Amino acid sequence: MKSYRKELWFEVPARRGFVNITPQVNDCLKESGIMEGLLLCNSMHITSSVFINDDERGLLLDFEYWLEKLAPHSPVTLYQPHETVMLYQHNATGEDNGDAHLKRTIMGREVVVAVTAGRLDFGPWEQIFYGEFDGRRRKRALVKIIGD
Amino acid sequence: MKSYRKELWFEVPARRGFVNITPQVNDCLKESGIMEGLLLCNSMHITSSVFINDDERGLLLDFEYWLEKLAPHSPVTLYQPHETVMLYQHNATGEDNGDAHLKRTIMGREVVVAVTAGRLDFGPWEQIFYGEFDGRRRKRALVKIIGD
Amino acid sequence: MKSYRKELWFEVPARRGFVNITPQVNDCLKESGIMEGLLLCNSMHITSSVFINDDERGLLLDFEYWLEKLAPHSPVTLYQPHETVMLYQHNATGEDNGDAHLKRTIMGREVVVAVTAGRLDFGPWEQIFYGEFDGRRRKRALVKIIGD
Repeated sequence: MKSYRKELWFEVPARRGFVNITPQVNDCLKESGIMEGLLLCNSMHITSSVFINDDERGLLLDFEYWLEKLAPHSPVTLYQPHETVMLYQHNATGEDNGDAHLKRTIMGREVVVAVTAGRLDFGPWEQIFYGEFDGRRRKRALVKIIGD
Repeated sequence: MKSYRKELWFEVPARRGFVNITPQVNDCLKESGIMEGLLLCNSMHITSSVFINDDERGLLLDFEYWLEKLAPHSPVTLYQPHETVMLYQHNATGEDNGDAHLKRTIMGREVVVAVTAGRLDFGPWEQIFYGEFDGRRRKRALVKIIGD
Repeated sequence: MKSYRKELWFEVPARRGFVNITPQVNDCLKESGIMEGLLLCNSMHITSSVFINDDERGLLLDFEYWLEKLAPHSPVTLYQPHETVMLYQHNATGEDNGDAHLKRTIMGREVVVAVTAGRLDFGPWEQIFYGEFDGRRRKRALVKIIGD
């Protein structure tokens, strides 16, 4: 069994952004020489994601607005049955990225992709994205491939 | 190391639906002859999911209504702090499946299952589903197994 | 190729709770003797999760309140375009854990982690959690490792 490892580094200039990393992941696969196996690609941070979807500009905007609706950046008052609660308690530590942890949870930490005949075994529209929710600093994703 | 690959095809007659594909995935595992390893099952489309949950009719209805609440099919006006935004910008391309990309994101693209002693190493209620959010056409999931 | 399997058992005393299981998963990896490969850790139940995030008390509270907002424990009346629907139809079977199936869907069933040089190949803040959404009974997660 062969194994391969590489870190991909990013610095998204805004707080949030999506980067299509399919070409870099493809380069890793070629470099590995693995023909049959599984490829894992995961964010190494807890405020960013690796996910698979379509590379379509409108869709990426929809993700941005939808995630902001489900887990807004600005603190939120939640009315629970017997109490009023402030999201994000995480930000009481001096952070302002409580929402980024939740957004990343919706989008996912990782993808596992089949490797067949030396290629990413994808359907016609599948593209791998790095999703940043707390950017403006250098962060990274891991590519690990095992197989023959 | 052995590896195995098969595509499972579906044509869900409605826009949305859930198909329990555990029997087909089990057949793949038997056909592979792999006794110890990992099995990946993923949608090859970006508007459908593969996920694991209970095969209980009420639960599947709950998923249907809950997903429609979180990412409704009909375009939605979102009020952001300084602007009004229309979901789904993706539909401006002539598509009507913007919601399907978001629903699939909630439900997930893929599952990875342990293979132990030639069987799917499942808890008592785990079942694998194909979740369709933009059906009425032929679509497919991939099964990839590696191991010995 | 080597393979390793172990079940980790939990009994969370409340309905919901988060357990940092990174030490137990690390012990599994050492016991396996595997140096290069992939590690799968998944809930064997459909009302609990295994996920990776930061071990920060405020964040875990945020998850608790956020999940209760997205999928409240108490049944909810949803107003759909042409009908009124009651979540959770699943609870009509005599269960009261309909919400737990949805919460677990948000948080995810499983994580796949790279194994490099005999260690979990993690970024600085990554920790593995068992997320319980229907506790007060013995339940378990599976650790499966393959590699060399």
